[in-house]
Amino acid sequence: MRVVLPAGTTETALIDGISAAGAAPELMEHTPSADVEIVEHGAPIMSPVTPVSPNGCPTPAAVTRAVREVVGFDVSVIDAGLTQSTAAPTVDLGGGPGNDVREAVAVPDADATFDRAFDYGASLPDDELLIGETVPGGTTTALGVLTALGEPAGVSSSLPENPIERKRRVVDEALTASDLEPGDCEGTPLAAIEAVGDPVQPTVAGIAAGALETGTAVTLAGGTQMLAVAAVLRHAGIDATLSVATTSFVADEQGDRLADACERFDCELTVTDPGFDERDHVAMDRYCAGEAKEGVGMGGALSLVPDGEMAAVRDRLETVCRRLGIEGDADSSAEDGVDTDGPTEGGRGP
Amino acid sequence: MRVVLPAGTTETALIDGISAAGAAPELMEHTPSADVEIVEHGAPIMSPVTPVSPNGCPTPAAVTRAVREVVGFDVSVIDAGLTQSTAAPTVDLGGGPGNDVREAVAVPDADATFDRAFDYGASLPDDELLIGETVPGGTTTALGVLTALGEPAGVSSSLPENPIERKRRVVDEALTASDLEPGDCEGTPLAAIEAVGDPVQPTVAGIAAGALETGTAVTLAGGTQMLAVAAVLRHAGIDATLSVATTSFVADEQGDRLADACERFDCELTVTDPGFDERDHVAMDRYCAGEAKEGVGMGGALSLVPDGEMAAVRDRLETVCRRLGIEGDADSSAEDGVDTDGPTEGGRGP
Repeated sequence: MRVVLPAGTTETALIDGISAAGAAPELMEHTPSADVEIVEHGAPIMSPVTPVSPNGCPTPAAVTRAVREVVGFDVSVIDAGLTQSTAAPTVDLGGGPGNDVREAVAVPDADATFDRAFDYGASLPDDELLIGETVPGGTTTALGVLTALGEPAGVSSSLPENPIERKRRVVDEALTASDLEPGDCEGTPLAAIEAVGDPVQPTVAGIAAGALETGTAVTLAGGTQMLAVAAVLRHAGIDATLSVATTSFVADEQGDRLADACERFDCELTVTDPGFDERDHVAMDRYCAGEAKEGVGMGGALSLVPDGEMAAVRDRLETVCRRLGIEGDADSSAEDGVDTDGPTEGGRGP
Repeated sequence: MRVVLPAGTTETALIDGISAAGAAPELMEHTPSADVEIVEHGAPIMSPVTPVSPNGCPTPAAVTRAVREVVGFDVSVIDAGLTQSTAAPTVDLGGGPGNDVREAVAVPDADATFDRAFDYGASLPDDELLIGETVPGGTTTALGVLTALGEPAGVSSSLPENPIERKRRVVDEALTASDLEPGDCEGTPLAAIEAVGDPVQPTVAGIAAGALETGTAVTLAGGTQMLAVAAVLRHAGIDATLSVATTSFVADEQGDRLADACERFDCELTVTDPGFDERDHVAMDRYCAGEAKEGVGMGGALSLVPDGEMAAVRDRLETVCRRLGIEGDADSSAEDGVDTDGPTEGGRGP
């Protein structure tokens, strides 16, 4: 089992009000670079940004890392258009950051990126891959691709109140800028990505396609962004077995739409509830309130947790949160503030 | 515990007769890229080259991987001047390949590379680092740096018959081309690297220096190349505790010189014998005959093997060798050729 994490950026994320991945637009482009440092090293180590919302909700990378510290798994981070350097080791497949979808071309090299990612996915010797993503603005580009493909699915949000109408207006503008109508890219999914997608999409799709071609089991680890990738794969004529693993937070928000989309794209669906409601901890409270929900392979990582180990993941998440400067329950901070693992911020993790 | 593996190239490796790291000069520059794929994935997965000598001696990366499959450890590969792409994730610290030491400048950006590596090493949250290397031609550049520093130590070889006189002549030429006499760089080790070293040296030295600065325990995993790095650190005025871990093959070749050099550079020395003489297997026979000896963190990785587990490492090495197309004992190939782990070449590892 290997977790593959394509990480990238798109200028689409800078559009006002569509992403919670980063407290301020100018810091958001650091988020994926920081996320992969958290998964690899347990905390941002060279990134100047710690992706925690003003409410104290940490990036889903914190949850993926907590799972990794409990169950252990190999990680390969793919540079799928990072703009900021990261101290996590990355595989460079040669793609660049994405443009604002409201430009004529959003991903100039979508075909070439897919091809390189395909070769990489085909080369991996693992029996099973779990493919996640971190790309701020990714649900908007997911909506763009689904719309261009003529698929009805909606998309999730990293904000408790999904600005879906805002996203739809952006996608309308994006399609117009690319001289497309909804459904115009049916059967030509890379054209959809090129016009209104992001660079992480052809990377995830290519790795998945290459891995499936060589008989590797593939799980897309994510919510509606991964449904868009599933749609891309199906529109590309790939009919191999495909799984989607996401969080209960996405499932709660999406309701029947999630299962419907999985049925439409012929994907096995796994939904995992991390039991965050059992803890009185600000980070877990924020997830229960609908913030962040998914990302950085969180739902897929949670699906790897054996029965009876989820409490250990929650314990570990508290430790990871302390490293990120989140002190847990504000009402008992005197007790929770005692850090048995070393300094909290800029400190040393395991 | 994290194993950090700077991987790079120098045109010095192309000088006739100084390196066994690659069957032919035109393939040698692929060796470090293939090595790190072996450590990360168990076999070369996108590299077109499998570093196995004509005699059937695999790269030390095979041994490091075998240890990793038995004991498990995190790996971070550093791109310290690779010329060929690799499918292993790498941290890019921005350095380029090295020039032939017989040019005036061998490592144009040695200072800047050291500084970036220092920051990276200082950022790592691990309690303990083991730093290895893979750079064909690295013992010649090690001899170059030691000579420029005025240090008497000799260097090892990846060939059973060490072409040490050939290396000394190359180093003499190299010093002349840089307008230096032996000892001229005493106290200015980065000048020595710039003149007659390779890009992996300032990367290893910088990571070690940064890690030591933040209280991380550092083991240099290698033989005479790592003694050259130890000399660099001591000439840079760094007096923190430093360990060297190497193989019995280097110790057997170097005799008293190894312990003498460690004493001179105030390094704890650990020598590990993997017990390859207990197996009748071509790869292990070749190591016992003095081929390869060390590299890619092999000696350091072996030092992590708990008591009683070395037989498991040898078992695992046989499996890794089969993936690399090495069938073990030629006299009983009918039996040893049975591969219980899948196809041997271009096949699928775990």
